[in-house]
Amino acid sequence: MVSDLKHRRRSHYPHLEAYTTRWLDNDVYGHVNNSVYYHFFDALVNGYLIKKCNFHPSTSAQIGLVVHSHCDYFGPVEYPSVLDVGMRVKKLGKSSVTYECAVFEQGAEEVKAVGEFVHVYVERNSRKPMKEGMDASMREALGGLLAKQAKL
Amino acid sequence: MVSDLKHRRRSHYPHLEAYTTRWLDNDVYGHVNNSVYYHFFDALVNGYLIKKCNFHPSTSAQIGLVVHSHCDYFGPVEYPSVLDVGMRVKKLGKSSVTYECAVFEQGAEEVKAVGEFVHVYVERNSRKPMKEGMDASMREALGGLLAKQAKL
Amino acid sequence: MVSDLKHRRRSHYPHLEAYTTRWLDNDVYGHVNNSVYYHFFDALVNGYLIKKCNFHPSTSAQIGLVVHSHCDYFGPVEYPSVLDVGMRVKKLGKSSVTYECAVFEQGAEEVKAVGEFVHVYVERNSRKPMKEGMDASMREALGGLLAKQAKL
Amino acid sequence: MVSDLKHRRRSHYPHLEAYTTRWLDNDVYGHVNNSVYYHFFDALVNGYLIKKCNFHPSTSAQIGLVVHSHCDYFGPVEYPSVLDVGMRVKKLGKSSVTYECAVFEQGAEEVKAVGEFVHVYVERNSRKPMKEGMDASMREALGGLLAKQAKL
Repeated sequence: MVSDLKHRRRSHYPHLEAYTTRWLDNDVYGHVNNSVYYHFFDALVNGYLIKKCNFHPSTSAQIGLVVHSHCDYFGPVEYPSVLDVGMRVKKLGKSSVTYECAVFEQGAEEVKAVGEFVHVYVERNSRKPMKEGMDASMREALGGLLAKQAKL
Repeated sequence: MVSDLKHRRRSHYPHLEAYTTRWLDNDVYGHVNNSVYYHFFDALVNGYLIKKCNFHPSTSAQIGLVVHSHCDYFGPVEYPSVLDVGMRVKKLGKSSVTYECAVFEQGAEEVKAVGEFVHVYVERNSRKPMKEGMDASMREALGGLLAKQAKL
Repeated sequence: MVSDLKHRRRSHYPHLEAYTTRWLDNDVYGHVNNSVYYHFFDALVNGYLIKKCNFHPSTSAQIGLVVHSHCDYFGPVEYPSVLDVGMRVKKLGKSSVTYECAVFEQGAEEVKAVGEFVHVYVERNSRKPMKEGMDASMREALGGLLAKQAKL
Repeated sequence: MVSDLKHRRRSHYPHLEAYTTRWLDNDVYGHVNNSVYYHFFDALVNGYLIKKCNFHPSTSAQIGLVVHSHCDYFGPVEYPSVLDVGMRVKKLGKSSVTYECAVFEQGAEEVKAVGEFVHVYVERNSRKPMKEGMDASMREALGGLLAKQAKL
């Protein structure tokens, strides 16, 4: 429920990264535009896969395609600032993973936005899921994240 | 339901606009990145408000803040191309509007993605909804869109 | 000279394309941000190479790397609008091409910005120029553009 | 000269800031797109003005409009990474400032790109320079940067 999401804290997320906001993240209202949060989520999750799960976007046999994304926005964030963006694994399926991501302002406890997106892992060329599902090493690494993350 | 959304056609959308894709809309996978669809939705809806509903982002008494957005992706689109993006009013509340938007490739019938976002209209300075709700002229213009749009 | 550039007209550019501006092209000043013009230039030139010069960004033996870019801005453009962006070949070297690009508002004659960028064509994997220079079919197609373009 | 620019080091820049790259900064070639460097320059310089020069983009009497920008690219940078972006004041005029900015990879000495842009300070509403030139407090703060920066 959205009312639960408002109570998310940094400790719910086993992996966080700092993002410096940019001038053009702000729209004419002087706050970070809603679409930019998805840039953060993409950056955080794929970066984790690359740095921790041996994923290589240009050469790995499988790639993750986004089939769904959503976000609930609880309050504005503004350039200039540094944001902490967190991720957790919400659901780890055979060929797909649902990630939950959240945005915090440095120095503030309240969560500003919580979103999700679903990656379906497909064979690079055919862009179809493989019969055996997601690559075993990636599943294992994401399982490790699951084990570390706070209960909800 | 997502399975219904896959059957969306241009005729379900009373307002459409053409967007030329850009080199940097494509990510390393050579397709338009999931976050870019939200750029299209924002551009289309706010452009409609500006051109048809007498909305002025820098001066109007009320502005629309996005409190939720989501998108389901059914197939890739790629730069270079021109896309048709459509919008309909899904729900017109007292202070909020839910828009549904869809992306089509020019020359193809199948919908590539369908998303929604919720605008809450707030007083520009306080960023709180007004007791009397959304500005009457905007409600009227959006009601006109409702009247024109195809049944679902 | 910059004072000459202010007199550029659509007719100086043998290839033009229409770009619909987007909400997030505008920055907090309510005009298209200076960096976005480079998005247009990249989109226009690479799109021409793909559509007219048999260039395939993901597979062609050679790719064009940008080693320099610049832009002079003469007046603002604003979302929502459709812009005409034009390109001409300024200099066609052995391994490199200098493109000049310009931005016009639909319905207005005055040029709003004129920029250039230099593509060095390199072998895809080594990212070094090839001894024989640019691919012959690309050189021929760009020569065709040179032949069509207005004198300056 | 471009050959001098290749020898720029962090110590030439009195103000630096770290930027975490994002998935969509990379284009299909797997490196940060040339246009994204201008996003960094805008973010860095305006952020400095806001944090150190009492500049308020939405309310200050004067705003800085970009009339020229350029960049020379010496080598690629790639997501995922954290970049150090530096700025120095190249020229401080009556109503305008020329900034030089540079991009470094964390952990590497060689500069990856050096660019410049020119801000003309104009009165917010008329968008014309003021007879008395740039706001005195901004000139003073930028002069302080000049005093701190390394000789070239």
